[in-house]
Amino acid sequence: MTSAPQPILLIKSGGQAALPEWRASFAEFAPQLGLDVREWNDPDVDPQAVEYALVWQPEAGRLARYPNLKAILSSAAGVDHILADAQLPDLPIVRMVTPETQQRMAEFTLMSSLMLLKDMPRIVAQQARSEWTEFSTPRTARETRVGIMGLGALGLACARMHALVGFDTAGWARSPRSEAGLACYAGAAQLPAFLARTDILICLLPETDDTRHIIDAALLAQLPRGAAVINVGRGSHVKSADLLAALDGGHIASAVLDVFDEEPLPPAAPFWRHPRILVTPHAAATPSRRERARQAAVTIAALQQGAPAPHLYDRARGY
Amino acid sequence: MTSAPQPILLIKSGGQAALPEWRASFAEFAPQLGLDVREWNDPDVDPQAVEYALVWQPEAGRLARYPNLKAILSSAAGVDHILADAQLPDLPIVRMVTPETQQRMAEFTLMSSLMLLKDMPRIVAQQARSEWTEFSTPRTARETRVGIMGLGALGLACARMHALVGFDTAGWARSPRSEAGLACYAGAAQLPAFLARTDILICLLPETDDTRHIIDAALLAQLPRGAAVINVGRGSHVKSADLLAALDGGHIASAVLDVFDEEPLPPAAPFWRHPRILVTPHAAATPSRRERARQAAVTIAALQQGAPAPHLYDRARGY
Ligand SMILES: NC(=O)c1ccc[n+]([C@@H]2O[C@H](COP(=O)([O-])OP(=O)(O)OC[C@H]3O[C@@H](n4cnc5c(N)ncnc54)[C@H](OP(=O)(O)O)[C@@H]3O)[C@@H](O)[C@H]2O)c1
Ligand SMILES: NC(=O)c1ccc[n+]([C@@H]2O[C@H](COP(=O)([O-])OP(=O)(O)OC[C@H]3O[C@@H](n4cnc5c(N)ncnc54)[C@H](OP(=O)(O)O)[C@@H]3O)[C@@H](O)[C@H]2O)c1
Repeated sequence: MTSAPQPILLIKSGGQAALPEWRASFAEFAPQLGLDVREWNDPDVDPQAVEYALVWQPEAGRLARYPNLKAILSSAAGVDHILADAQLPDLPIVRMVTPETQQRMAEFTLMSSLMLLKDMPRIVAQQARSEWTEFSTPRTARETRVGIMGLGALGLACARMHALVGFDTAGWARSPRSEAGLACYAGAAQLPAFLARTDILICLLPETDDTRHIIDAALLAQLPRGAAVINVGRGSHVKSADLLAALDGGHIASAVLDVFDEEPLPPAAPFWRHPRILVTPHAAATPSRRERARQAAVTIAALQQGAPAPHLYDRARGY
Repeated sequence: MTSAPQPILLIKSGGQAALPEWRASFAEFAPQLGLDVREWNDPDVDPQAVEYALVWQPEAGRLARYPNLKAILSSAAGVDHILADAQLPDLPIVRMVTPETQQRMAEFTLMSSLMLLKDMPRIVAQQARSEWTEFSTPRTARETRVGIMGLGALGLACARMHALVGFDTAGWARSPRSEAGLACYAGAAQLPAFLARTDILICLLPETDDTRHIIDAALLAQLPRGAAVINVGRGSHVKSADLLAALDGGHIASAVLDVFDEEPLPPAAPFWRHPRILVTPHAAATPSRRERARQAAVTIAALQQGAPAPHLYDRARGY
């Protein structure tokens, strides 16, 4: 009798350079699993031994090559880059959501809301011209209504942090819920009321057939004049031409955009040079490698024991 | 017997254009005081009737012309611009601190801390070049130690808001105090310990003989390598050449500067073009006219009744 081979965890994130850190972290967080941690392009991997894959954007057809694959771990909260694979095997897909992701996203969206409240796009543009023009913004956070689309693992953390510093905070999701200190709206029927009371709109939806291009001319028109937009969901949530038109027409005052249809955002994209838009390079909530390893270890341990993994992608819902 | 003339409140803030709003606000907040609200350069003012002045930077000698002046109300939290008058009469000086000022300053410093934590100076510079380079910042607020110099009306509000979102927060003041969730340091003896544990230093001191140029090479060297600086106190707190040298030497990573030795900051000043500095035009916490009128009304009512006015400048302490 030969001893069972070690289960292989194949990682596509950070390349060969990141492998020592991944290995050390899995040895620290999951020594009992005896994982053989390998880099995505390692030529010596036995396809039969691959049981888990931690990936962001796998080449189409690649995951189908591993007959004993048990689960696909996304290296990010979204799974749209994995679903893009037409030959994707029918296996559990686990989203990467860690407490650190939640804290980072809450910090990033709060920073963005404060920057839009204080008109930092104007201040940044003034600095670029060495121009000193004093001005006073009309409101504090207390008089400013933030509305968060998506009240999942990330949206809810953001809503709570906004409420802590005084923003008048509401959220919108598919299903109704109640949460202290948060005005909750649900479904298409309540979207107009949610938008009508929103000065700063934050998108934290997943990418699904229902949410693609949700931020279009019709939606923007339902926000109060002078509203601002923060998109940290997916680029596909925003119809770029409609947002630009609303900014140029003055109905929308400013925006922070972290995600784009095409990433890296191409140099010719008009977003880069728009004076009312702050562009950030998909920087909102990248968890550290260490925290991703910690979360992946928890997930694999649960799956090995047949227990439910947290943050499982639900094919029926589409997120 | 002639009826007593109405007490005049002379206002140097916003000019003639702001007078209708000032008048409406005082009529709303202090109808019982029967104040005759006049603009600073109104030629028809009887000097005998002037009892209060609400000012930012009065011309030297001007306030000495009013024999019945009872108090000087600063239109801002600082009084350094009033003290600059060598012929200043020996009268109570009241600082303008409103709940709105506190909320605004807390929001502004929190925004600045989050921007430095997430390296927004780098992101802003990248956008200016249409450059997409993804990067991950090493820490969340929870692993970041904020240190606030000055725990007065504004510093304390800032400390509390930083602690709410998770920053590891400490403060430094002249006198010892204890405050839940805040590590408090006091006096010159505890300054080194305070600086050694501070990743983001926020200056909210008043300008006094003891605090002028307090942020110099010697102080900056006591911060951990990679620390960041936010100055929202007064420009005179920072020795500009020392800060620039520390930034260029890499010991200090970045800075947000809202106040300067000379304001408006002259176009030739190197701060404008430094890639690691965000310059804001004394925009941290300008209270609205309405809130200033509300606070001034409370102050004048207290003084009229011989009650102690809040936020009285203390000549002995120098702030
Ligand atoms: N920019 C970045 O760096 C970054 C980092 C991480 C994640 N993200 C993005 O953030 C997204 C959200 O992540 P998460 O972990 O919070 O997702 P999640 O836990 O799956 O939450 C999704 C939320 O969206 C709501 N929702 C879904 N479809 C909807 C619809 N058609 N109408 C209304 N509400 C709908 C859900 O409603 P129910 O509550 O009713 O189910 C839920 O509240 C990710 O998918 C990803 O795109 C971006
Ligand atoms: N950028 C802007 O838009 C803006 C707006 C408003 C105000 N400000 C600035 O903010 C400053 C602070 O305002 P505030 O209302 O908070 O002032 P405050 O209530 O007078 O508080 C001053 C604080 O500084 C401390 N302090 C004074 N001298 C010190 C010294 N030598 N060593 C250590 N600590 C010392 C005091 O210690 P104790 O507690 O022991 O007395 C107190 O905690 C103002 O003076 C102004 O310059 C800027």
